[in-house]
Amino acid sequence: MKTVLVLGGDGFCGWPTALHLSAKGYDVTIVDNLSRREIDKQLGIDSLTPIQSIEARIAAWREVSGREVGFSNIDIAKQPAELTACLDTIRPDVIVHFAEQRAAPYSMRGAKEKRYTVDNNVSGTHNLLVAMVELQLDAHLIHLGTMGVYGYSGDGFSIPEGYLPVEVQDDNGVRHSREILFPTSPGSVYHLTKSLDQLFFQFYAKNDGIRITDLHQGIVWGTQTDETRMDERLINRFDYDGEYGTVLNRFLVQAATGHPLTVHGTGGQTRAFINIQDTVRCVALAAENAPERGDGVTIINQVAETLRLSDLAGLVAQVTGAEITHVANPRAEAAENELVVSNATFRALGLDPMLLETDLIGETIEISGRYRARVDLAAIPATSAWNDSRRREIAAA
Amino acid sequence: MKTVLVLGGDGFCGWPTALHLSAKGYDVTIVDNLSRREIDKQLGIDSLTPIQSIEARIAAWREVSGREVGFSNIDIAKQPAELTACLDTIRPDVIVHFAEQRAAPYSMRGAKEKRYTVDNNVSGTHNLLVAMVELQLDAHLIHLGTMGVYGYSGDGFSIPEGYLPVEVQDDNGVRHSREILFPTSPGSVYHLTKSLDQLFFQFYAKNDGIRITDLHQGIVWGTQTDETRMDERLINRFDYDGEYGTVLNRFLVQAATGHPLTVHGTGGQTRAFINIQDTVRCVALAAENAPERGDGVTIINQVAETLRLSDLAGLVAQVTGAEITHVANPRAEAAENELVVSNATFRALGLDPMLLETDLIGETIEISGRYRARVDLAAIPATSAWNDSRRREIAAA
Repeated sequence: MKTVLVLGGDGFCGWPTALHLSAKGYDVTIVDNLSRREIDKQLGIDSLTPIQSIEARIAAWREVSGREVGFSNIDIAKQPAELTACLDTIRPDVIVHFAEQRAAPYSMRGAKEKRYTVDNNVSGTHNLLVAMVELQLDAHLIHLGTMGVYGYSGDGFSIPEGYLPVEVQDDNGVRHSREILFPTSPGSVYHLTKSLDQLFFQFYAKNDGIRITDLHQGIVWGTQTDETRMDERLINRFDYDGEYGTVLNRFLVQAATGHPLTVHGTGGQTRAFINIQDTVRCVALAAENAPERGDGVTIINQVAETLRLSDLAGLVAQVTGAEITHVANPRAEAAENELVVSNATFRALGLDPMLLETDLIGETIEISGRYRARVDLAAIPATSAWNDSRRREIAAA
Repeated sequence: MKTVLVLGGDGFCGWPTALHLSAKGYDVTIVDNLSRREIDKQLGIDSLTPIQSIEARIAAWREVSGREVGFSNIDIAKQPAELTACLDTIRPDVIVHFAEQRAAPYSMRGAKEKRYTVDNNVSGTHNLLVAMVELQLDAHLIHLGTMGVYGYSGDGFSIPEGYLPVEVQDDNGVRHSREILFPTSPGSVYHLTKSLDQLFFQFYAKNDGIRITDLHQGIVWGTQTDETRMDERLINRFDYDGEYGTVLNRFLVQAATGHPLTVHGTGGQTRAFINIQDTVRCVALAAENAPERGDGVTIINQVAETLRLSDLAGLVAQVTGAEITHVANPRAEAAENELVVSNATFRALGLDPMLLETDLIGETIEISGRYRARVDLAAIPATSAWNDSRRREIAAA
């Protein structure tokens, strides 16, 4: 039986992934410092769904599935010795790494949050790589990256899976070629940290032969998976606030409470999406398809489809009857962009993803309707302006 | 009079730069946590030259030049509040940022030094950028990067000044173009941090309009400048140990003490070089040529020439009569490489650099001969193996 460490296994993607891998027969240990719950307290927000403590979650899973999941409370950014000891004790075959601050608006909230996001994400990822080298641990590291590292330039470049071949001609007319990491242009400090991660992985794969798969994920929608639905105590978190709630969740909660859907700017921003059920399937597929030592970093786009935000709002409006309104955009981003993304690898591995057009209605009824009474309307607006010019635009609006 | 903050102004490049800018009429304040002196103690090594305390240095400069240089002991990685307060008090026109752990072998010494190099360099640089945004400080940030971020692939790509135009063809045969950061391939954790810095600068220049010049420097040789020569109490540091001593310094000390020059591997590694006198001239030129807000990051190669290490050893042998010997290479790097580097920007700004072939003899007599009695021979060998396979090769040799 393969042993898996899920770093950040108490979080929105980490928890259902831990359960899914446990259900598939992996011996799972969660490492988490519960920082996401702490940030909820700091911001005065809460998951729409009533999530249980990690201890209650694990006990419920034991009861429901008969399977043990371990838990270790370690801050991988600040406790490298404890992380190293944990890795040395468990000697996992696979490490799934979700343990990074993952909200772009939170990362742009102010100086403190910018510093926290960088210090936490960079040190955590690097401590992990250093520990793997120190322990000569030949585990397969699966990291959750983001499509957002590439930015949304709209200059006609489509997004391949990680690499771009380039050619140059020297002064003698001789052509030389090289395959490079597809160039990044992150739009927030959070996205910047995932772009930094790519350079860490490139280096440690080259210098020490660490086996790494970097999953560049789209915006995740949906809440429940086959495993989290098995018992209400296993329920996954659902964020709808302006810092952690992704665009679809905020639309769904606005619709459920009879408020118009607030689209930032024109809604011409095109983004990539994937359902949480497919997130856990993709991580399991990645775990079953490890690269060889010396292969370099395998980069896979974990994406089901792309959609304009105005079309997404239209879909929600169609399902729920909500109105749509446009508000000033706090983000420094292009008003409109095209986005063409390859997802050939997971397609070839058999992924047949859920799509918003066909699967959105179930989600709406399942979560945002059921927990409507828990909504805090004041938490919904996104208020972190991403730079001074956006701050002035919002103040003037 | 322009105000300059020199971060890392007690170090090998920082100290002579602070004096040079002071001599040119800038109002200079040094910020330094004296970490380089602390590492000397930890490693049981010392500068060949008898450097004075920062207080004695500044007092000597006041006596010699009649000019005041300020000093503030701040760890910019760990004391963001103090850094922010210092920036707010001084509101400098120019910030020269040398405050990073700068030895590749030290960064590869072990888990602790890998973590320290990343945590220190990343947090320090990011804290600085965050503070500039928070204070709406429109200073010109000049950062010392390294040619080493690009790696030494030998695949025929020459190194431009920062950017590479790339083109792709879409499925409809339409061609699209973009200018990207020249792709990096760092060979050590130290070089990796300078590669991460590039992404920080790209983001903060784009998102917040920070004006940044990133100087990609070659290996610096030489010790003294016009200002550090004015009084022995102003003398610059000279490192010749296996962690901090660059290749030329170790050759010079070996020659001065009658030992053969130890070349790593074949000596076919080609590297870029610049004299310390030209380092300070280049920083002053950069300070006088600030980019405009919104220009993006200006990247300049701060390089005089390129040379094979075997040719460098040959030059030293010719000047000193020393023998040459080859030892197993602790670094994970290509045995041989070509290196073609543009230095068009500084050439156009009037730089006529010192060259090893013509200026090496003076350096040899000036420093390594004069302080021969202070040499600790045991400190010279480079012992930090950069990965497990190099460790095994050295053990077998």
